[in-house]
Amino acid sequence: MKILVTSGGTSEAIDSVRSITNHSTGRLGKIITETLLASGHEVCLITTNRALKPEPHPHLTIREIKNTHDLLLEMKERVSNYQVLIHSMAVSDYTPVYMTGLAEVEASSNLEEFLNKHNHQAKISSNDEVQILFLKKTPKIISLVKEWNPAIHLIGFKLLVDVSEDYLIEIARQSLIKNQADLIIANDLTQISANQHRAIFVEREQLQTVQTKEEIASLLLEKIQAYDS
Amino acid sequence: MKILVTSGGTSEAIDSVRSITNHSTGRLGKIITETLLASGHEVCLITTNRALKPEPHPHLTIREIKNTHDLLLEMKERVSNYQVLIHSMAVSDYTPVYMTGLAEVEASSNLEEFLNKHNHQAKISSNDEVQILFLKKTPKIISLVKEWNPAIHLIGFKLLVDVSEDYLIEIARQSLIKNQADLIIANDLTQISANQHRAIFVEREQLQTVQTKEEIASLLLEKIQAYDS
Repeated sequence: MKILVTSGGTSEAIDSVRSITNHSTGRLGKIITETLLASGHEVCLITTNRALKPEPHPHLTIREIKNTHDLLLEMKERVSNYQVLIHSMAVSDYTPVYMTGLAEVEASSNLEEFLNKHNHQAKISSNDEVQILFLKKTPKIISLVKEWNPAIHLIGFKLLVDVSEDYLIEIARQSLIKNQADLIIANDLTQISANQHRAIFVEREQLQTVQTKEEIASLLLEKIQAYDS
Repeated sequence: MKILVTSGGTSEAIDSVRSITNHSTGRLGKIITETLLASGHEVCLITTNRALKPEPHPHLTIREIKNTHDLLLEMKERVSNYQVLIHSMAVSDYTPVYMTGLAEVEASSNLEEFLNKHNHQAKISSNDEVQILFLKKTPKIISLVKEWNPAIHLIGFKLLVDVSEDYLIEIARQSLIKNQADLIIANDLTQISANQHRAIFVEREQLQTVQTKEEIASLLLEKIQAYDS
């Protein structure tokens, strides 16, 4: 099958030297991609410069992006050509709009005005003792996928931090329904380490739990093979 | 000689999944370290997980840090044991204190109160359309080096973006005097690319310009050899 995988974490520039980065090594996306390639699938991996990447392979295309805006354009262009999307990238929820010192914000009677401002310096000066950064929400790319390709099998991820398993499953199920996904893989950062990656596969009628990145990749492969039959 | 090199860029956590990162590949620090090792010097390289690193070498120690606070502790402990410091790390000027939605900030009559708040969630929720992040200045580590070791030869860097050469030299000279440095290497991001790295060596009595990372490393080596004689 033709499978689109996203992996790594986006970075949103504050200025030309500083960014807000979502942590993600890309290790899971690498293992998933390698597992799919080994089973004869064709993979396009959308990832970032900093992420770990698989070795070159004749059935692998790699596209690098930096921020949420790049990712949206890249996915919008590609999603219609693929049968499955595995969207494991850690995508920034917010992107910087404007950064300024305390004085300018204190002098304002309407904070929303800062959402229309832009920094003119390439590197924001560091003279102020305090800086205030205004951020706005990025588009939820996962919610657009089915508009771009209603037939695609959509597999998403939900990462929370230090929550109960019931809550994690509940939030994953909401994402499953809202985004018309086939599967949401739910995980908690406190259960991810070098040798462990506990994850719950949340589908409409089923829950399955695995414990490592390799197990995530092989259960994913099994799910995808079933879509094909 | 015993030389301490810093390299890469610090990351300041906003929460457990997001950080503010200073861009730096660590490539220059790697080349400088390799050049020093090849000439028989002993190097301790303080760098980050993400930065490019030299191959292991019997005269090389590598210490990894994440943020400005770690860097300060690590340098405070080590600076007194070295004869030269080459401080090429891109250090965050600001560190996040508190992030919240527009409503909480609009309701406040004193913005400074947010500098004493802390986020209690491990991962800040992304329900708000807008977030406001309060940041405070980090300690200027380079200004503390001579307090920790008055005899050390201090070599700093000054990176600006798209400024005139005169202004770049002026700012580097201010840093030279203020931090009691032997040398500030001034560079402009617009003049750094894969094959080029224009840099101006600013000393009390002298200015010298080089064009590549390799030239930076070899002129640095020359300066350091002179300190020894």
